[in-house]
Amino acid sequence: MASRREFLSSLLLAGSTGLLASRRAGADSEPTLPPVSSPAGGYKPVVVPNGQTLPWKMNGGVKEFHLTAEPIEHEFAPGMTVKAWGYNGVSPGPVIEAVEGDRIRIFVTNRLPEHTTIHWHGLFLPNGMDGVGGLNQPHIKPGETYAYEYTLRQHGTFMYHPHADEMVQMAVGMMGMFVVHPKTPSRVDRDFVFMTHEWAVHPGTYRPDPSVMLDFNIFTFNSKVFPATAPLVVKTGDRVRIRIGNLSMNQHPIHIHGFAYRITGTDGGQIPEAGQWPQTTVAIPVGSTRDVEFVADVPGDWAFHCHKSHHTMNAMGHDIPNNLGVDQGGLANEISQLLPGYMAMGEKGMAEHQDHSMHMSGPRNTLPMMMGRGPFGNIEMGGMFTTVKVRDDITSYEDPGWYDHPKGTVAYLVKK
Amino acid sequence: MASRREFLSSLLLAGSTGLLASRRAGADSEPTLPPVSSPAGGYKPVVVPNGQTLPWKMNGGVKEFHLTAEPIEHEFAPGMTVKAWGYNGVSPGPVIEAVEGDRIRIFVTNRLPEHTTIHWHGLFLPNGMDGVGGLNQPHIKPGETYAYEYTLRQHGTFMYHPHADEMVQMAVGMMGMFVVHPKTPSRVDRDFVFMTHEWAVHPGTYRPDPSVMLDFNIFTFNSKVFPATAPLVVKTGDRVRIRIGNLSMNQHPIHIHGFAYRITGTDGGQIPEAGQWPQTTVAIPVGSTRDVEFVADVPGDWAFHCHKSHHTMNAMGHDIPNNLGVDQGGLANEISQLLPGYMAMGEKGMAEHQDHSMHMSGPRNTLPMMMGRGPFGNIEMGGMFTTVKVRDDITSYEDPGWYDHPKGTVAYLVKK
Amino acid sequence: MASRREFLSSLLLAGSTGLLASRRAGADSEPTLPPVSSPAGGYKPVVVPNGQTLPWKMNGGVKEFHLTAEPIEHEFAPGMTVKAWGYNGVSPGPVIEAVEGDRIRIFVTNRLPEHTTIHWHGLFLPNGMDGVGGLNQPHIKPGETYAYEYTLRQHGTFMYHPHADEMVQMAVGMMGMFVVHPKTPSRVDRDFVFMTHEWAVHPGTYRPDPSVMLDFNIFTFNSKVFPATAPLVVKTGDRVRIRIGNLSMNQHPIHIHGFAYRITGTDGGQIPEAGQWPQTTVAIPVGSTRDVEFVADVPGDWAFHCHKSHHTMNAMGHDIPNNLGVDQGGLANEISQLLPGYMAMGEKGMAEHQDHSMHMSGPRNTLPMMMGRGPFGNIEMGGMFTTVKVRDDITSYEDPGWYDHPKGTVAYLVKK
Repeated sequence: MASRREFLSSLLLAGSTGLLASRRAGADSEPTLPPVSSPAGGYKPVVVPNGQTLPWKMNGGVKEFHLTAEPIEHEFAPGMTVKAWGYNGVSPGPVIEAVEGDRIRIFVTNRLPEHTTIHWHGLFLPNGMDGVGGLNQPHIKPGETYAYEYTLRQHGTFMYHPHADEMVQMAVGMMGMFVVHPKTPSRVDRDFVFMTHEWAVHPGTYRPDPSVMLDFNIFTFNSKVFPATAPLVVKTGDRVRIRIGNLSMNQHPIHIHGFAYRITGTDGGQIPEAGQWPQTTVAIPVGSTRDVEFVADVPGDWAFHCHKSHHTMNAMGHDIPNNLGVDQGGLANEISQLLPGYMAMGEKGMAEHQDHSMHMSGPRNTLPMMMGRGPFGNIEMGGMFTTVKVRDDITSYEDPGWYDHPKGTVAYLVKK
Repeated sequence: MASRREFLSSLLLAGSTGLLASRRAGADSEPTLPPVSSPAGGYKPVVVPNGQTLPWKMNGGVKEFHLTAEPIEHEFAPGMTVKAWGYNGVSPGPVIEAVEGDRIRIFVTNRLPEHTTIHWHGLFLPNGMDGVGGLNQPHIKPGETYAYEYTLRQHGTFMYHPHADEMVQMAVGMMGMFVVHPKTPSRVDRDFVFMTHEWAVHPGTYRPDPSVMLDFNIFTFNSKVFPATAPLVVKTGDRVRIRIGNLSMNQHPIHIHGFAYRITGTDGGQIPEAGQWPQTTVAIPVGSTRDVEFVADVPGDWAFHCHKSHHTMNAMGHDIPNNLGVDQGGLANEISQLLPGYMAMGEKGMAEHQDHSMHMSGPRNTLPMMMGRGPFGNIEMGGMFTTVKVRDDITSYEDPGWYDHPKGTVAYLVKK
Repeated sequence: MASRREFLSSLLLAGSTGLLASRRAGADSEPTLPPVSSPAGGYKPVVVPNGQTLPWKMNGGVKEFHLTAEPIEHEFAPGMTVKAWGYNGVSPGPVIEAVEGDRIRIFVTNRLPEHTTIHWHGLFLPNGMDGVGGLNQPHIKPGETYAYEYTLRQHGTFMYHPHADEMVQMAVGMMGMFVVHPKTPSRVDRDFVFMTHEWAVHPGTYRPDPSVMLDFNIFTFNSKVFPATAPLVVKTGDRVRIRIGNLSMNQHPIHIHGFAYRITGTDGGQIPEAGQWPQTTVAIPVGSTRDVEFVADVPGDWAFHCHKSHHTMNAMGHDIPNNLGVDQGGLANEISQLLPGYMAMGEKGMAEHQDHSMHMSGPRNTLPMMMGRGPFGNIEMGGMFTTVKVRDDITSYEDPGWYDHPKGTVAYLVKK
């Protein structure tokens, strides 16, 4: 993928007038700005766990971005890779980050085998820039590059996604977040961005199935499953914002441990302070974003996850036989004569699965339903799960490892 | 249906004392008022896309309405008709529109093969008028007419539906909206009313299946699918209200392009202004209504749809084989020798389906999954999708055709 | 179950230092306080329909509670009993009720066949008390007792549940509500607490299936189905609060007839008054609680239920053949020669099922899909349904029987 991204980057650099030049690679004298990290008088840039923001360059007062829709290989976690579609080599696509009042131009190149468009979800713009194929513009055919151009008249957390063969293209990974900062940013110390999603990858296959309406089996934060999901690292006392989008088929109730957030915004804008609900679980309806804020005033490793319990399990956790309470002893003996190594599971619950799955292999290209080890043992999660790591004493936001609990502050054994 | 409605109308006219006279048709000297269109000192009447409001007449200070529960034939869009149940020949039933303080009497005649009742969802009324069969009143047996009578003590957007064999009767189309205007109406230029719904019609059948809990395949606005859904026509600058109800089994997140609405009310009443969330997608929970308002300040053809992507597909779009990335060339050749005209589809995505479906026929009584052509090509939608057509220069609210974009305001090709 | 609870109670009494003594039963000189019923200067205790609150005792300034996780037999309604897992012999576990500022210690004994933990959903506490197995603490192994200890720094409606093999353990009944009263309680006359849930019990089996993600078939209030659900009895004019939690896989939209509630709180705390939405249906997202309040100013028997119509049906109501409109006469005759007593059903709707099911038996350990008789006939409900009984003249909150409607206040027959 890296070489492809390098190629794309050079493609972007090659444009100097808003029309892409015909040379496809090579040296270039104009600098492409990386995502801003300390803009003069500007905003605090967002943090994208497991992801990235989209580079841009100024061209005659216009911020120019470039998205390429294309087939990708995507890894949910080591051991499971799918053939998906994304933008600029990744799913979700890079986060677009800009400022209210910016004039922007976004080039969209289509390297998919079928036509596409991009709809800028939530943004106020001229009707012809809205991106519904057939209704607002011609479809972007394979090989073509289109330009969208408009001025950002609002701020908040928005999204981008195809509005052409939309059911298919979103189901296989085409989606991205779009953050517009206000001209005068509100104070926040950490500003995270997530896209939630769900996928149907039948056991042993490599291609997400776009015709599935209900039976999804992979549930992701920024297209990753636990434990491949990056932690959210913050300092004790930090004011934290989390921006979450949802282009899947189900509402995802995203729960935080240890804190209550206030719901401060949606893809329709800022919620008036008097109307901001306190919640520990923010339900993100389909086709919506939510901004939540909280002060991380207690250190520790705090779970952060979708509260639908199957959404914190990977593909092998759903719709399997129910062996709870079923004595499988006799059966297991008989089977193990035919299949050496066979172990009956589930009689006493499923917690034993995590340990067993370390020694057994499932169908090709699947993940065990439970994964992750913490400082006290198996975490027994997968899918939409990560941690908010709050620390007193860190000097950077690198992953600080597990929390070191003060004495007497951990639940304790009183009787064996 | 027309003759049936005429019959019903005459039936209503025939009643002069609150008891229905025994003559079933014929001339009548008392006028039945059509839905008000410019009431003296009154409210702006609602607009019901693909639907209608319920006529009424005054009888001794009481507004009298008449609903007949009955089997109907219902067309989702040309090419797909089902045997459903509805009110006064249609599904959803006509919108009841009245004013806070009104004394109302609603006659309900049962022409179904089984008993029914009507529950007035959200309304404050005497317990015996609440309509739960067995609990609050006897069931209305086939052939019987019951009267409900109460004073409207509130205003807002409510619903009506059976509370007798409720799972079945709602699943096959029995539902309606009930709008109560305040005595002093707030200013709004266009006031639309929608009922969302979902149906399970197995391919090749004509009868919605009421026992389906999850696998619905037809998703409707006022019981129509795109492109049979009427557009919402407004003038630039109009203050627009949309009232949306949901008696299905799933939350429907209804998204508008180009604008953000404020959520101003629910079936529990008006939301205080400080608590009104701005949203571009309003999630309508099951058994709820939402009122949303926005100022349509930018002209164009703006998409308006449920954001669950399968809900903007018709019946053939779900749970079909996944051919994405599968080279079907050899297979297609072999099959086409057996089945002349056979085309393999889906290898490159599903956008090609819309063009192919114009030349192929699916199972009896189904619709292609993608339909609708716009000014720039196929819109590739079905189900819960329509457009808000905002125009500067219209003198009526008739469908103005497609939007004529000013030069330079449409996404443009920069490179082939 | 009673003897088991007596045993557990004695186990709790046996502890005097925070460590459980080794004697397992027998006399004890220390009193265990029952749930408070009129605390001096204190709060109005919650009412738990079909449930109970958890006893506690003071130990050196600390309120001590004891929960035992264990297999239970649970009856949804007479005729259907499952082998589930719960706390202290019941599902949901007893409601924990305490006051902001309390120092609490909760002993958790594991009598399950696999390890467990308890997460205190929504509570602010030290990270080591948060209960995520592997992440915040070691798992509690079978036979072990752990202690959790923290100070209540907030008030509101919270929950407790395992965070170890969580998908399984919640699916089979392990869950409970946790109410923290403010130091200065707000005035409320009746304060009800409910846990909603859904279960997959395949026909003829006795063990809820934890691997089911979508196809649930039993839907419960405090783990009971109608008509085994207790009514909510209140006096006319009472200010009523209902606290509802959800640890299932689906949002439950809980509808009240006759009133509109204000949404006053979530598991994140109190909603500012200006932000309290009026609703007649409160959607409880997964992993959330909602507090709703209303004044019960109109007497009667008011339905209170989940508005997803399949959620008010029991197990036999979903995914059965669709016979609506199918003339089964000939078929029924032929089958009845083979199966005497066979009746074809569903041709005219399903209302007839309730009467038939009184005379027929379904598969072992199932309930008819429709149950309950009211003063006017069959109520045709099951699952998540009960009534709010509002009465002028009651002197206690015992079930007052059916409402006696004043003359002329019930929907009436006007024509046969």
